[in-house]
Amino acid sequence: MTVLHPCIKDGWFYEKNEMWPGQALGIEVKQVLHHEKSKYQDVLVFESTHYGNVLVLDNVIQLSERDEFSYQEMITHLAMNSHPDPKKVLVIGGGDGGVLREVVKHEGVEEVHIVEIDEAVPRISRKYLPKMAVGFDHPKVKLFIMDGFEFLKDKVSAYDVVITDSSDPDGPAESLFQNEFFQILNTALTPNGVFSTQAECMWLYIDDIRKALDFNRTLYPQVRYAYSCVPSYPCGQIGHIVCSKNADVDLTKPLRRWTPEEEATLFKYYSADMHQAAFVMPQFAKKTLFM
Amino acid sequence: MTVLHPCIKDGWFYEKNEMWPGQALGIEVKQVLHHEKSKYQDVLVFESTHYGNVLVLDNVIQLSERDEFSYQEMITHLAMNSHPDPKKVLVIGGGDGGVLREVVKHEGVEEVHIVEIDEAVPRISRKYLPKMAVGFDHPKVKLFIMDGFEFLKDKVSAYDVVITDSSDPDGPAESLFQNEFFQILNTALTPNGVFSTQAECMWLYIDDIRKALDFNRTLYPQVRYAYSCVPSYPCGQIGHIVCSKNADVDLTKPLRRWTPEEEATLFKYYSADMHQAAFVMPQFAKKTLFM
Repeated sequence: MTVLHPCIKDGWFYEKNEMWPGQALGIEVKQVLHHEKSKYQDVLVFESTHYGNVLVLDNVIQLSERDEFSYQEMITHLAMNSHPDPKKVLVIGGGDGGVLREVVKHEGVEEVHIVEIDEAVPRISRKYLPKMAVGFDHPKVKLFIMDGFEFLKDKVSAYDVVITDSSDPDGPAESLFQNEFFQILNTALTPNGVFSTQAECMWLYIDDIRKALDFNRTLYPQVRYAYSCVPSYPCGQIGHIVCSKNADVDLTKPLRRWTPEEEATLFKYYSADMHQAAFVMPQFAKKTLFM
Repeated sequence: MTVLHPCIKDGWFYEKNEMWPGQALGIEVKQVLHHEKSKYQDVLVFESTHYGNVLVLDNVIQLSERDEFSYQEMITHLAMNSHPDPKKVLVIGGGDGGVLREVVKHEGVEEVHIVEIDEAVPRISRKYLPKMAVGFDHPKVKLFIMDGFEFLKDKVSAYDVVITDSSDPDGPAESLFQNEFFQILNTALTPNGVFSTQAECMWLYIDDIRKALDFNRTLYPQVRYAYSCVPSYPCGQIGHIVCSKNADVDLTKPLRRWTPEEEATLFKYYSADMHQAAFVMPQFAKKTLFM
């Protein structure tokens, strides 16, 4: 099957974008597996030569099978292990299912809701990204296809943990980076609730991260920024904002932890030690984000 | 000035290489500043649109002005702060001068030797990378243009700290990754000496890193691997092997540290906290490197 895509040239996908001017990761393409314009975005899946299958939304790499584990594990367990006993969990976005796969590793969880705006993402992930989409098959998981902002509007004290696993703010996820969204999300959390969100790369968006942190500081007594390393993301890194309603929680130290043997079985990236290390900022980011 | 270079196409430099198949970072080029075939390698300096000036040796990005600080600071201070009082320091490679700039931040240092095989690198760095090459101008610094391996052969107990800041093993730096080199380097160190070396990216070369660690474990009682994040390197990350002859040293905790105020003035990346965090490995690397 030969599919033409504006980002694929001479057998390589190049991620050029105004969000990261002057730099572009190239990934060599073996074959295009799927390409469609969904109701919300351009959806592309290709098989790469060295990164497994790759999901691309609106020309931006969302994940590769080779390195998706670091992002999925970190955005999930940084939040989940900052709550003493999360029972009801909401995932906003995350239509590939990877965060669900991680959430259900916490056996105390009773119910996981996921609200994804674009039905194309779970549909295509089930077909081409089965190691992530496996998350949808868990009996505790319930999928809602609708806008996350709309879904949250009437929720009060409904979730112990909310994880926003969104694409970048330039597209259908735009509203998930706005203060009004952070506000209604806060209302949807139980009294000691925890929130984590995809929060962009410190090497690219330090000022936007600062703004999002500052607004969330008006809503939560505990607000921190952490990062994980993901080779297929711009600059090889992505950030997470983690917030807790519990003023006594130190987000940099997991409230719950597995044994080292369990960690070695359950994870490829996360550990209690990595949880703590992820909050240690380079000087340049420390100055801007916490001064 | 229009200079043709095989890696530059349509105004972008693409770092395709057999060392990292299937992936390639692209950096947008404003203008080529210098291109020559030196005695040892292809030397290119270009001004980029968003990464400042970029030094490329044999088609591999060595540094960009935008993010060089994290590599230079980490490879230097991980080693320097693992020694209680380094007075004599040797840098092998590092012809851009960036490591020298960092070494002389330690006021107790009396003498810094640097041995660089290719005179073209310091010459060109002085012209196009003045913020790194400033390291050469310090009165404690002495430059030797010769092969690092040859330089070390007759040195016995001569240096408190040796830092190998080399390019990848595919080129003139090949000998700097071999066991014979690690052996003579060990002899050149004083009894409680410390060695750090550029040790490649854990996402790309985990088995080679393991081999280099294992051999150095036969020479030193303390051997560790750390990493720093550098957006312009493949996968956005580079590693450092750090070794000490002192069995009682915990390399993951700096023996000496600056105050937080001094750290904020001296560094853009390094801190005592970052020193410790850099040794925390993702599960996948922990299993392979330390089991």
